Amino acid sequence: MRIATATYQGSPRIAVHEQGERWAVSPAAGDLGAHLSAGSLPEPGRDWPRVEAEALTFLAPLPRPPRNVMCLGLNYADHARESQQTKGSELALPEAPVVFTKAATSVAGPYADVVLDPAVTEQLDWEVELGVVIGRGGRHISAAQAYEHVLGYTVINDLSARDLQFRHKQFFLGKSVDGTCPMGPWITTADAVADPHDLALSCRVNGTVKQQSRTAEMVFSIPQIIETLSRVMTLVPGDIIATGTPAGVGFARTPPEYLSTGDTVACEIESLGTLENRIVAPQP
Amino acid sequence: MRIATATYQGSPRIAVHEQGERWAVSPAAGDLGAHLSAGSLPEPGRDWPRVEAEALTFLAPLPRPPRNVMCLGLNYADHARESQQTKGSELALPEAPVVFTKAATSVAGPYADVVLDPAVTEQLDWEVELGVVIGRGGRHISAAQAYEHVLGYTVINDLSARDLQFRHKQFFLGKSVDGTCPMGPWITTADAVADPHDLALSCRVNGTVKQQSRTAEMVFSIPQIIETLSRVMTLVPGDIIATGTPAGVGFARTPPEYLSTGDTVACEIESLGTLENRIVAPQP
Repeated sequence: MRIATATYQGSPRIAVHEQGERWAVSPAAGDLGAHLSAGSLPEPGRDWPRVEAEALTFLAPLPRPPRNVMCLGLNYADHARESQQTKGSELALPEAPVVFTKAATSVAGPYADVVLDPAVTEQLDWEVELGVVIGRGGRHISAAQAYEHVLGYTVINDLSARDLQFRHKQFFLGKSVDGTCPMGPWITTADAVADPHDLALSCRVNGTVKQQSRTAEMVFSIPQIIETLSRVMTLVPGDIIATGTPAGVGFARTPPEYLSTGDTVACEIESLGTLENRIVAPQP
Repeated sequence: MRIATATYQGSPRIAVHEQGERWAVSPAAGDLGAHLSAGSLPEPGRDWPRVEAEALTFLAPLPRPPRNVMCLGLNYADHARESQQTKGSELALPEAPVVFTKAATSVAGPYADVVLDPAVTEQLDWEVELGVVIGRGGRHISAAQAYEHVLGYTVINDLSARDLQFRHKQFFLGKSVDGTCPMGPWITTADAVADPHDLALSCRVNGTVKQQSRTAEMVFSIPQIIETLSRVMTLVPGDIIATGTPAGVGFARTPPEYLSTGDTVACEIESLGTLENRIVAPQP
């Protein structure tokens, strides 16, 4: 099952995929978050209009999550290596998950334009990541039970302003520029994903492959991440976890590469879908 | 004007201070966040019951903020020094604000018990901080206009699980244990605070003074912080900024000191109020 949030006839609706290009959309403005809090999934009724995808403008599946997006740092070995090399630091995998957040307000649609304002950052970089969406909350969830709490999976581009990220030491500011968390195009529910650790993921900039790996390469697995997070805090329905990015980011290249106005970034995960975002200049 | 959220007759109400111990409480369950989003302040009507403080159970003024609490690290020179000394690193003030977040779900009441679970952390530490509550959102707010966006001020104890904070590298997890962001007891609106940079603040553990400083000692001022944050992201009504803590935290003491079950931590800021939280064992 694929669940999306999409604008239809001027208001955001819940959209549930039926087949081919056909989606059922909620008759009134809807909010997936409300369903998740109530512990239910949207069920298209006979009163739900059936429309073709081209009639929809896809938004992030959860346009305003209940708290900041939680993100794993250095969670692919090859990316940990390339990051450490640029800083001349010792090469080592993290001994415990490194977790930072992106402001809830940075979440953007799967095809939204991303504003690159040189007065804010001159080093905007890409990071394709598998997003895990929590359906059922809880505390002290064991790794063995972690998947019972997962609603589904989505694609995230953890766009990163490297100058801000490194200047401000903690990652939060460099990860929280407005619009720098494109997400979607939809949530694929867990029952439709045979193994979330057996998916190809890639990032292309203007058609050139920059990142290409598999989710099998994660250092800390999804169950380990959920166990770690929920030991500290109660997870809530609608929580989003970005599980880290593989090698190939711009700042670790020789010479470093960053996104420019006019570029298009495409982040794809096998069977989950593709984000495609254009980098644009600020409105004058 | 002091605005609180408090439980009265079984439901959370907006409470507005009148005089002495008397408060006006909203007749129905209320939410300060809804007022802030609408750009208004609650105005007690004739139908608001007038009650004594002892009839109220004060909660955090914004029990569930719209996104994670944003916190400044190393924003008092003496605390930056003591932190760096424990790590043997170079003594230097941060060149740019260091910002991390506490999960929105860590927010707790001003007099709430704080659960210390040794299976989660064995190094729970105190940090008294001036909290700034944003009333009017915005992007690219200049330092000169920053105060126009401040609704008011409150007291925050940025309780920190040092073992988690350092083991996981980025601060987020160590700062986000459930219940480790006591806040309140109320918001004192900006018009009632002559100068937020001229306030004494202190933290006492079981009556012994551990931290004692003045908000004049901040490295980055409130206007500078608001300018920095809003350059990166749109601030939203109800955003909470914890502006950093002065010297005297437990982990930097010789030998280090941490909180134990049965301890009481009191965080006080001149003219804003006092938090008082007891550290308790988990329910069996």
